[in-house]
Amino acid sequence: MDFSSFLTSLGTSFIIFVILMILFAWLCTKPGNEVIYYPNRILKGMEPYEGSRSKIRNPFAWIHEAISSSERDVINLSGLDSAVYFVFLSTVFGILLLSGIVLLPVLLPIAITENNPGVKNSTGKNAFQDLDKLSMAHLKENGSRLWASVVACYWVSFVSYFLLWKGYKHVSDLRAEVLASPEVKAEQFAVLVRDIPPSSEASSKKEQVDTFFKRIYPDTFYKSMMVTDNKAVNKIYEELQDCKKKVVRAEIIYENSKKGPKPVKPTHRTGFLGLLGKKVDSIEYYNDKIRELTPKLEAAQKVTLKEKQQGSAIVFFTSRVNAASAAQSAHARMIDTWTVIDAPEPRQILWSNLPKTFYERETRQYVVYFIVFLTICFYMIPIGLISAFTTLPNLKELMPFLSSILDQETIRTVLGAYLPQIALIVFLALLPKFLLFLSKAEGIPSESHAERAASGKYFYFSVFNVFIGVTIGGTLFESFKEIQKKPNTIPERLATSLPGNATFFLTFVALKFFVGYGLELSRLVPLIIFHIKKKYLCKTEGDVKEAWYPSDLGYATKIPNDMLILTITLCYSVIAPLIIPFGAIYFGLGWLVFRNQVLKVYVPKYESYGRMWPHMHARILASLALFQVTMVGYFGVKEFHFTPVIIPLPIMTIIFSFVCSKKFYRFFQSTALEVACHELKETPNMEIVYKSFLPPSLVPEKHDDQQFEKHDDQQFEKHDDQLFEENV
Amino acid sequence: MDFSSFLTSLGTSFIIFVILMILFAWLCTKPGNEVIYYPNRILKGMEPYEGSRSKIRNPFAWIHEAISSSERDVINLSGLDSAVYFVFLSTVFGILLLSGIVLLPVLLPIAITENNPGVKNSTGKNAFQDLDKLSMAHLKENGSRLWASVVACYWVSFVSYFLLWKGYKHVSDLRAEVLASPEVKAEQFAVLVRDIPPSSEASSKKEQVDTFFKRIYPDTFYKSMMVTDNKAVNKIYEELQDCKKKVVRAEIIYENSKKGPKPVKPTHRTGFLGLLGKKVDSIEYYNDKIRELTPKLEAAQKVTLKEKQQGSAIVFFTSRVNAASAAQSAHARMIDTWTVIDAPEPRQILWSNLPKTFYERETRQYVVYFIVFLTICFYMIPIGLISAFTTLPNLKELMPFLSSILDQETIRTVLGAYLPQIALIVFLALLPKFLLFLSKAEGIPSESHAERAASGKYFYFSVFNVFIGVTIGGTLFESFKEIQKKPNTIPERLATSLPGNATFFLTFVALKFFVGYGLELSRLVPLIIFHIKKKYLCKTEGDVKEAWYPSDLGYATKIPNDMLILTITLCYSVIAPLIIPFGAIYFGLGWLVFRNQVLKVYVPKYESYGRMWPHMHARILASLALFQVTMVGYFGVKEFHFTPVIIPLPIMTIIFSFVCSKKFYRFFQSTALEVACHELKETPNMEIVYKSFLPPSLVPEKHDDQQFEKHDDQQFEKHDDQLFEENV
Repeated sequence: MDFSSFLTSLGTSFIIFVILMILFAWLCTKPGNEVIYYPNRILKGMEPYEGSRSKIRNPFAWIHEAISSSERDVINLSGLDSAVYFVFLSTVFGILLLSGIVLLPVLLPIAITENNPGVKNSTGKNAFQDLDKLSMAHLKENGSRLWASVVACYWVSFVSYFLLWKGYKHVSDLRAEVLASPEVKAEQFAVLVRDIPPSSEASSKKEQVDTFFKRIYPDTFYKSMMVTDNKAVNKIYEELQDCKKKVVRAEIIYENSKKGPKPVKPTHRTGFLGLLGKKVDSIEYYNDKIRELTPKLEAAQKVTLKEKQQGSAIVFFTSRVNAASAAQSAHARMIDTWTVIDAPEPRQILWSNLPKTFYERETRQYVVYFIVFLTICFYMIPIGLISAFTTLPNLKELMPFLSSILDQETIRTVLGAYLPQIALIVFLALLPKFLLFLSKAEGIPSESHAERAASGKYFYFSVFNVFIGVTIGGTLFESFKEIQKKPNTIPERLATSLPGNATFFLTFVALKFFVGYGLELSRLVPLIIFHIKKKYLCKTEGDVKEAWYPSDLGYATKIPNDMLILTITLCYSVIAPLIIPFGAIYFGLGWLVFRNQVLKVYVPKYESYGRMWPHMHARILASLALFQVTMVGYFGVKEFHFTPVIIPLPIMTIIFSFVCSKKFYRFFQSTALEVACHELKETPNMEIVYKSFLPPSLVPEKHDDQQFEKHDDQQFEKHDDQLFEENV
Repeated sequence: MDFSSFLTSLGTSFIIFVILMILFAWLCTKPGNEVIYYPNRILKGMEPYEGSRSKIRNPFAWIHEAISSSERDVINLSGLDSAVYFVFLSTVFGILLLSGIVLLPVLLPIAITENNPGVKNSTGKNAFQDLDKLSMAHLKENGSRLWASVVACYWVSFVSYFLLWKGYKHVSDLRAEVLASPEVKAEQFAVLVRDIPPSSEASSKKEQVDTFFKRIYPDTFYKSMMVTDNKAVNKIYEELQDCKKKVVRAEIIYENSKKGPKPVKPTHRTGFLGLLGKKVDSIEYYNDKIRELTPKLEAAQKVTLKEKQQGSAIVFFTSRVNAASAAQSAHARMIDTWTVIDAPEPRQILWSNLPKTFYERETRQYVVYFIVFLTICFYMIPIGLISAFTTLPNLKELMPFLSSILDQETIRTVLGAYLPQIALIVFLALLPKFLLFLSKAEGIPSESHAERAASGKYFYFSVFNVFIGVTIGGTLFESFKEIQKKPNTIPERLATSLPGNATFFLTFVALKFFVGYGLELSRLVPLIIFHIKKKYLCKTEGDVKEAWYPSDLGYATKIPNDMLILTITLCYSVIAPLIIPFGAIYFGLGWLVFRNQVLKVYVPKYESYGRMWPHMHARILASLALFQVTMVGYFGVKEFHFTPVIIPLPIMTIIFSFVCSKKFYRFFQSTALEVACHELKETPNMEIVYKSFLPPSLVPEKHDDQQFEKHDDQQFEKHDDQLFEENV
């Protein structure tokens, strides 16, 4: 790739970005589109447009809004987890900015003015001669100019330590502030109890739990809620909900037809997919069904609550301090009974995982680790098998109806060439879901924890396979044998092949941010899907809301991707400093774009109170260590006699990581009591706290309990904590 | 060494043992000796002899008494820590007994009937040909009879796992029982707070602590006690105590002289060592001094309590559950402030370590680890240096007054030959004290914890240097270079040199138990010292009591020694099964002897509620793993093709150790709440609990506080918890 084609690639990306930006500025002012561009604000009951709403908006107004928004706005509108993501972005941006300010003006002139007769231009498939002149590859072997690179390594490392330390402290402060807030949060008054031992007495499990906790906390124990096996009741509940929805829909259709010349009662057939069977009046049919299902649900609820109690419970305390301290104390002598941990938010509890016993969880965890290890190292094997299996002759045999298509010459060539790649793309697209599935299979009790676990697994996959894979060439599996023979050659192998791939990664990063962020901001795909759905599928208000209801930020896949970019940028930062501005733009622009998206679009699925941060912190340090080890290798390749001066760096990274986790991590595992003891705005209404944890299928249909107002009940049915806090 | 000299050595040891036993049976019935042979019973206020006291006692009566005593007796008389030591002894005895029952009848005939023409007799310095015929060394290389040894390895391992699991469970039950006991124990109502951050407000440290804990525990917080810098007040207090003692002594001398013809008032000189200066009347002089010191002490106490508060405190709760849960919860967000742990018993607190800050403790810990590492690996260097320095010519130069002695021929020869050995013996005698000093220097808050830490260090020293040192020959340091080159040859090196040293260790173990236990039981040394002191030094009742007051069991040095014997026995168990009975006798006889000593003699210095057990458990497993690794090496030396069948064993040991510590260990770190929530006999008198933690030098001399009876004050002055519990 020469310099002009590099610029062309860069320019194309940039033009796409500009077009998407203009599209965004135009589309977001269109009347019907607020629900796509401002759903978070709408759901919070705010005006979509801040301040004056002018039809012709400044296309850069969103940038101004994003910059002028404060951390407090983010926490209020989208929770602490989103705020932590911005701390991550700004920390990394800071690292790259400070590195770039020093490295670019120092290393580039040193490299370009070097007169190295023996220089070998890099020869990788993506090699690019002009860039080489700006890189460390151009420096003389064992020359004194390499000392500049040594200093650069130290500078990048120290900048990282400094900003990471500040970041950890800041996130810890934020977490403390949010956890100490005077609002009543249901999960702060509850703990999750697992591994309840089989009761020796004839009493029910619930009585056993009550007795146990009443004895230990005679003053502050409020109530317990047993986790039950809800399969049967859930089925009836869903059927009932479905009928209710269909009644509403049928009524709307009927109402609409009344406006027309001939009112027609909507009908449908009861058989397969509404195509076969008797034709019935929909409204009557579903109303009958609702009347039939409601007592059935009530009966099922009673049976479930009484007879399907599992070995897990949620226990409520009237004091926030007591709940926090209970979650940190060993209640039983053995680790495998009465495990007590912080209760997750009701909306993110993975109910089916709760009754899993200690040994089941441990076993599952190790099995999952092993599967992930196999996936990372040998993921090419199943793909290869699938490709082999889906060759054209095989396909024709399996699916004879395709043979007329497959016989055509051009289609055959294209398919033959692309089938393995398609298999790979499908695999990579399914991978995050697969990893999330695996993480949930470990028996993790909450959605946020499962996403963190999946994100960790994805990080290892992407660093090993994308970064090391692309650099060394082929997957880890291929170079496995060679590495096995000489395991200490990994840094060297990595180092020799790095410069040749610099351009590939440069364009990769640029493509990522220009096209990726352009699509993100303009939300073209959700917009198109919404309009199609609205036109052809949506009948009721609820349907429309469902069509535009935004997703959440998608931590589990977003962070490993960011980490990959960071790893690439850090590893090249000293070898080819030209990559630093690209990395800095990726994170700086990312900050801007996501600030906009978080404030206006995404609705967080859960709140984990910043528990993502230690995870990010550890991954950033892992990237830094990889960079430092690579540099040790690269200085070795450069035959630099003083290479050992770099060796203290990875050791310092390990010590730094150890010190940070020792100092800060405990507070991220559990709530410190000095934080939990802050005063509340008012005494919590424990019944509301209790009900917010009730699964919707177990909420009594008839509200016999008259002491709560209507709007309270709605709240816990919605399981929307945000609303809950506002009203309490 | 041939068979007859082996028997001679064994016989001599046995005869010494028999003589000591007879001496014991005779001496312990002598009237003046009860205080040496039954001090624990006397201090507990019991009759020294159980049941009928006949002058001519059966010399084996003590064996009957030891066997018929129950675990409950041990806990009542000597605390849980002693009971745990018996669990240790009986577990190890069980392992060796069950191993011996299978291994001896199986392996000995197999070895002796083997017809191995190529057998090489072992050639070590302690080699012993007859024993070789009974050992694995006699088996054919790669013969099928080696399978019996493989089975034996598995048998020993599984027996160990089974008994260790049972032991851990049993100790955990005992600990729960003692911790849940309805008696009020002061330390169960207190927590130790360290790393109190500097207060920003003008308030005193005590106010800061009170405010902090009152906020978190509004209902159960009772009081706090600041740790103060007591150096000045301690000095005055000790002087005062000394004067009081001397007054009593002078009065007794005066009383005694009244009985004589001419009553003489005792006098002494005030100058250096009572030899120079003015002659004064002792009684008057000391009484004057007491009158002078008492107000001085009171003033110093006030200053200390107000102005010398340190960054550490003991905080009292009115509820046992709350104290237990507080010790397990993070109180502050950062690990380096407000560290809260279980309060140790008052009598074992290392006061001067409490105010050490978190970072100081961490730094000290790593420095100490490093020093211990150096001591273990290179302890021969300083000894070598000292020996070189103390050669005869050097000695003469340094201490010319010795030259007349050193010039004599025989003395010169003897000294020249023994000087290095003397240096080594002095070093080994001082080592436990040195390791205890190092452990205390780490900043550990309690005596028991420091002894555990010292014991751990001593274990590594003894295994590495005595066992591996004697076996491989020379110290680790000497074979360091060779091992460094090929680190994976350690098991092989160990294995090749093992059989040659079997006899050495056989006689070593026999000597240990015959002579060691004989001396232990007969208590000849304390008896002689007591009688000398009583005759020449003791004047008052207190002096006599001080002379016979027994020591404690001495965990810190006893356990590493037992562990060394266990390591030796296990490592030889399959190679030379003849060692098993010796090991079994060592632990079985040890159980008997120490049962007697614990019930009648030793007074425990502290109670750590069985926290020693996880430490012992880990060390037993380390010995087992060393045995298994050695066997892998030895099968390799025997050119056994199926050697890999042994490799699962060390892996299983690691997994077993991991599972045990995961399942049981947490309860040994802190009190489980289900245990702490058991009901108490009565509401604790918190003022007594509080006062039991007051250092004696800070107890007010005049008891202005009239609400406590005299005997309560005596209790906390004595710092004897046992008594305290009985009276409360």
